[in-house]
Amino acid sequence: MEYYSSHISNLIEQLSRLPGIGAKSAQRLAFHIVNMSSEQVRQLADSMLDARNNIQYCKSCCTLTDQEFCPICSDSRRNPRVIMVVENPRDLAAYEKTGKFDGVYHVLHGAISPMLGIGPDDIRLKELMRRLQNNEVDEVIIATNSSLEGETTAMYISKLIKPSGIKVSRIASGVPVGGDLEYIDEVTLLRALEGRVEL
Amino acid sequence: MEYYSSHISNLIEQLSRLPGIGAKSAQRLAFHIVNMSSEQVRQLADSMLDARNNIQYCKSCCTLTDQEFCPICSDSRRNPRVIMVVENPRDLAAYEKTGKFDGVYHVLHGAISPMLGIGPDDIRLKELMRRLQNNEVDEVIIATNSSLEGETTAMYISKLIKPSGIKVSRIASGVPVGGDLEYIDEVTLLRALEGRVEL
Repeated sequence: MEYYSSHISNLIEQLSRLPGIGAKSAQRLAFHIVNMSSEQVRQLADSMLDARNNIQYCKSCCTLTDQEFCPICSDSRRNPRVIMVVENPRDLAAYEKTGKFDGVYHVLHGAISPMLGIGPDDIRLKELMRRLQNNEVDEVIIATNSSLEGETTAMYISKLIKPSGIKVSRIASGVPVGGDLEYIDEVTLLRALEGRVEL
Repeated sequence: MEYYSSHISNLIEQLSRLPGIGAKSAQRLAFHIVNMSSEQVRQLADSMLDARNNIQYCKSCCTLTDQEFCPICSDSRRNPRVIMVVENPRDLAAYEKTGKFDGVYHVLHGAISPMLGIGPDDIRLKELMRRLQNNEVDEVIIATNSSLEGETTAMYISKLIKPSGIKVSRIASGVPVGGDLEYIDEVTLLRALEGRVEL
């Protein structure tokens, strides 16, 4: 794109690599950014670097956090005997917003997908099984998405845990089929939690 | 949002200030960014700072560029006697992509909008008038958007230039090529009817 300066072309190209940012949005964002104050751009750039460089996986639940253990796992008011398994931190946040779940989480960072070549070893499943070894957990609530991958993952985890005698449940349908947890309203999320059935 | 690390919350907040990025997209982008390699995040952040800090307005057409004069104004193959007036550099890029305009541009960086309190002095209009002073321009093609603001700006510029005897034209508005009549708004349909040309 000869008609833009190389600095802007480069910025547009970098931005268009982000998910959900097409060529047009990248252009729009790039021109917005060059029109921001230097200070604002510096803050935006720093916030990216800060987040990237200070983030780690919680040693217990595997969510992204800036400490060894995340705020939820460190909170003594939370019940560590009930673990809700979610696909990613955004889904964790979605359930936290309901304010009605007082257990802890386990973040898989993905779902099993034979289509995409993502197997059980590619998600944080070993870490979950390790948490269940010491007889300190009463129930595992599987809250993966109700997509094909989410359901496959739920079935797989259920079969893996059942032999140990720990109660395994799945959030109820009520979450629309094919729906992505993070976009679903809180009432539906709560309905699904209350209606969970043992697997 | 206590359930995110402050670094991520901060990044989400920074991202959600960008145009067209809502709370959900900001979350999605933030988690994508913390999952990128350090090197990729560094490149993204640098591209923003580079673009912001190396960009200036072309001394002739006012588009954003990294040199005193933009590549188009510096190109001897372009005809400087025909100036197309656009609202912003994205519109310039849109016409450049057609590859069929060999004149030069003038970028207003906005449009007159009494509603938003944007007057003629708030866009790069003085700079346009200055370019017309030395009898070196034959035609000014006004290619502002066909919105209320764009039309207002076109009328205003037209009245300003006309006394000088320079030809002023306006790009045609009408039904887009490939557009299905039934989905096009009435104002556009009327405009297309009024602007009909004899075959």
